Amino acid sequence: MDLTDELLRGSRLALARILTQIENNTQQGRQALDVLFPHGGKAHLIGVTGAPGTGKSSLVNQLAAAFRRGQAGGPRRVGIVAVDPSSPFTGGAILGDRVRMRDLAGDTGVFIRSMASRGSLGGLALATSGIVLALDAAGYEIIMIETVGAGQAEVDIARLAHTTLVVEAPGLGDDIQAIKAGILEIADVLVINKADRPGVESTERALRSMLQLAHPSRRIFQDTTFKAGHRPAIEIPENTAQSLGEAANESVWIPPIQRTVAIEGIGIDEVVQEIERHRQYLEESGELEKREWARLKSEMDLLVRETLVKQWSARVSSSQYHAIVQSLALREISPQQAVKKMLGDD
Amino acid sequence: MDLTDELLRGSRLALARILTQIENNTQQGRQALDVLFPHGGKAHLIGVTGAPGTGKSSLVNQLAAAFRRGQAGGPRRVGIVAVDPSSPFTGGAILGDRVRMRDLAGDTGVFIRSMASRGSLGGLALATSGIVLALDAAGYEIIMIETVGAGQAEVDIARLAHTTLVVEAPGLGDDIQAIKAGILEIADVLVINKADRPGVESTERALRSMLQLAHPSRRIFQDTTFKAGHRPAIEIPENTAQSLGEAANESVWIPPIQRTVAIEGIGIDEVVQEIERHRQYLEESGELEKREWARLKSEMDLLVRETLVKQWSARVSSSQYHAIVQSLALREISPQQAVKKMLGDD
Repeated sequence: MDLTDELLRGSRLALARILTQIENNTQQGRQALDVLFPHGGKAHLIGVTGAPGTGKSSLVNQLAAAFRRGQAGGPRRVGIVAVDPSSPFTGGAILGDRVRMRDLAGDTGVFIRSMASRGSLGGLALATSGIVLALDAAGYEIIMIETVGAGQAEVDIARLAHTTLVVEAPGLGDDIQAIKAGILEIADVLVINKADRPGVESTERALRSMLQLAHPSRRIFQDTTFKAGHRPAIEIPENTAQSLGEAANESVWIPPIQRTVAIEGIGIDEVVQEIERHRQYLEESGELEKREWARLKSEMDLLVRETLVKQWSARVSSSQYHAIVQSLALREISPQQAVKKMLGDD
Repeated sequence: MDLTDELLRGSRLALARILTQIENNTQQGRQALDVLFPHGGKAHLIGVTGAPGTGKSSLVNQLAAAFRRGQAGGPRRVGIVAVDPSSPFTGGAILGDRVRMRDLAGDTGVFIRSMASRGSLGGLALATSGIVLALDAAGYEIIMIETVGAGQAEVDIARLAHTTLVVEAPGLGDDIQAIKAGILEIADVLVINKADRPGVESTERALRSMLQLAHPSRRIFQDTTFKAGHRPAIEIPENTAQSLGEAANESVWIPPIQRTVAIEGIGIDEVVQEIERHRQYLEESGELEKREWARLKSEMDLLVRETLVKQWSARVSSSQYHAIVQSLALREISPQQAVKKMLGDD
């Protein structure tokens, strides 16, 4: 039997092998992606990102356990993809896995995969996307994609998700600096983990004012903020915002702030409920379709870029390339003229 | 007279106009780059990067003044390019400029340019590279490129420089986290600014151990470390490192750690001396040529990528594109099949 058939029939071994092929970008891996693609699109993809030290891994662990217990709508199969673009060793991810193995050991409803860093950010995003597709096709209904930090890589990878959790924690230094505006824009649910630590109030205040700064035209309520980055169906002028009722809530997602103490399991069920609520919002508002569309489009654009460069470098001989760089270095030709020569346009 | 001729004859107005054209990536801007390219390659390019709050702008300010005073080798003309990839408003950069204008006002030997954020990281790096070329051709002998933070953008922009300063400061939270390994690898000179603050000792200790962590096979001396990222001409086994004398110093750059209190002008001359010493090392070791080569090569590669994508999108009609994305979203074709259709390869 073919490996992809075995995967579709539930073989963990076949899944593991295909994941390795996808990660190594082999011919078999690329073929598997084509075969599996029609079987994807069923899972709920949850991105989890935050700075080191926020306890993301423990949170993901606890969320996985909660989804397994079937906190909302029966037990679900859970896939976890841990990505660490900054480290070539995925140090944190591997450590996290050990902890997870202890807690989730022997549960065949959970599959955990750590991803090593790849050459380019584009490569990492594409590989992650392939891993997610394979888990999705294999029947994992909840897939959590965990990334470290707040760089471009994390933002790119978060674009893969339907629901993005941004994790903060008190006492990680200057809160305003720790939370990059770019990362707040992708947050659907904000989690303050380690909420039993001193400084939790100021972390929450900082989060609220950051959200307000990012959207000065929106009124920020006591515990609600208008969704960053998602234009509501109806533009709401500031002075009428307070009088808006159910109608506005239907079309606008307000990213909630939820406190947790992950290692003690505190606040976990509430985060699961917020995720479910967000899923419902995505479905009812038509936003789910839009995000799927955007996700596939951005994956394709990335693949187009990589393919164009690959095709081009196959056309150019290394001696040609070298000669052009040489005359560039001697300033005989400008970079733009060099590019024309490289692309055979002159 | 042509604008580029005026620039080459020293007109600040012509320079300012050309910089705007380059930043907006207009046809005239691109033409100017071709004309100016043979006149470039003379300036010493200094990258200055570090987290917000480290006082980078004050440091750059003071360094500019020191180069103007001619601390080492007579007064030099100084160009400053302030890049803030994270902010669409270049808030920090604009504020920094106001302070600079007060200090450096009326000095025609100084030219300051802030760069607004551009669409893509690649676009920003290319525009910065063009700005630097124009300043170089206009006769600015020292060009400082200031970037905020430690993301991919900063690393890319730092690649433009001959000498890269990484700026730290005590009391910015967890030092180990604040200094990303990637940014340390590009450092030629480490500056601990605000060195009159408490915690300076632990910041310096953290920097040393980070350097050591990054290069466990190298012995780290009391105040010397082997250069990260630059393979020395001779590989030095750990047990013989201590017995190496002058011979090793000729081929290995040891990134020094220099304390400063920029707003009081303390330690500035020492940083200038380290920059001069690094310039000398670059010239004597042949590293300068290698860096120029790598810099132009990476600029050309980026330009090739951008051009390939631009040429491709000119070929594809928007209705074609839309139809392919549609059948992708319906999962009729896989992303890889979509790319083949997009590129007309199937």
